[in-house]
Amino acid sequence: MRVMGVDPGLTRCGVGVVDGSTGRPLHMAAVGVLRTPADEETARRLVLIERGIEEWLDAHSPDVVAVERVFSQHNIRTVMGTAQASAVAMLCAARRGLPLALHTPSEVKAAVTGSGRADKAQVGAMVTRLLRLREAPRPADAADALALAICHIWRAPAHDRLRRARAVAHPEHGTTRPKGSTPS
Amino acid sequence: MRVMGVDPGLTRCGVGVVDGSTGRPLHMAAVGVLRTPADEETARRLVLIERGIEEWLDAHSPDVVAVERVFSQHNIRTVMGTAQASAVAMLCAARRGLPLALHTPSEVKAAVTGSGRADKAQVGAMVTRLLRLREAPRPADAADALALAICHIWRAPAHDRLRRARAVAHPEHGTTRPKGSTPS
Repeated sequence: MRVMGVDPGLTRCGVGVVDGSTGRPLHMAAVGVLRTPADEETARRLVLIERGIEEWLDAHSPDVVAVERVFSQHNIRTVMGTAQASAVAMLCAARRGLPLALHTPSEVKAAVTGSGRADKAQVGAMVTRLLRLREAPRPADAADALALAICHIWRAPAHDRLRRARAVAHPEHGTTRPKGSTPS
Repeated sequence: MRVMGVDPGLTRCGVGVVDGSTGRPLHMAAVGVLRTPADEETARRLVLIERGIEEWLDAHSPDVVAVERVFSQHNIRTVMGTAQASAVAMLCAARRGLPLALHTPSEVKAAVTGSGRADKAQVGAMVTRLLRLREAPRPADAADALALAICHIWRAPAHDRLRRARAVAHPEHGTTRPKGSTPS
């Protein structure tokens, strides 16, 4: 499975592509950062991010895109830019019909370090080790994008089991009543 | 000037097109609402909104797109969907090289009712009157999109004067020092 992780942001948007499957060694296919000028209008910056994501999707043809789930407890100004950049990444993936997964920052940290409260340095160190790199990818957004991809590879089997279980329980997209129940 | 107003949202995204200029009667060209199913994945909903916005831009060829500026004081869950939908609207406009303006809800209310704290009903009533409609556009998101467009038509001259003044003061995008000052 090839996963493209996206750590969304307007100023720096981390992108990392990892090949792997549960229980087998991971391999980094590519890593980088999309940057847009802070003095540019937001709408133009979103166009630049869209163009960048499209180029990465064309170049690396991932099977899945994993995007960081934007979180409410952040500073509201930061959240806005992150939400906008992540919307563009989600749009690009969905437009191609690619499966998309969202993982929270603590799920990502827990997946690669064992602790949902690990700091940036710890995540960078584990990404370096797990992908057998010479040094930690910089900036931190690049390392975070790789961590997202790794998190997805390791969580995917559980994800799929859950989705299949839900599909069996609710074959029509969760709108059917359990058998034997009567309409209220 | 033809302005397309967009009141962004995932469930209901209001769209309204108004022709006009300061001091002349306004004319409504079109109004409507893009809807996406609440039980669909967010990424798919963003694709549907993108498709809808593109169809509106193709059909009505506005000179400017005015989008509601997403605000921090809202409920954080609502803000996320609104931020994502507005990012898509901004992206669509900027990709075509169309000028884009953001107006806050209170600017819009103040423009059409005289009060930044007017309620939905008041905005709907004034939109109906200003555009000489038989009845208020429904749902409220549709009326809000028209109000945004009207707000932009009336604020545009002030906007342009400000932009020109800034361009004269800071010809290189605000990075030049005032004449006569010395580098610190």
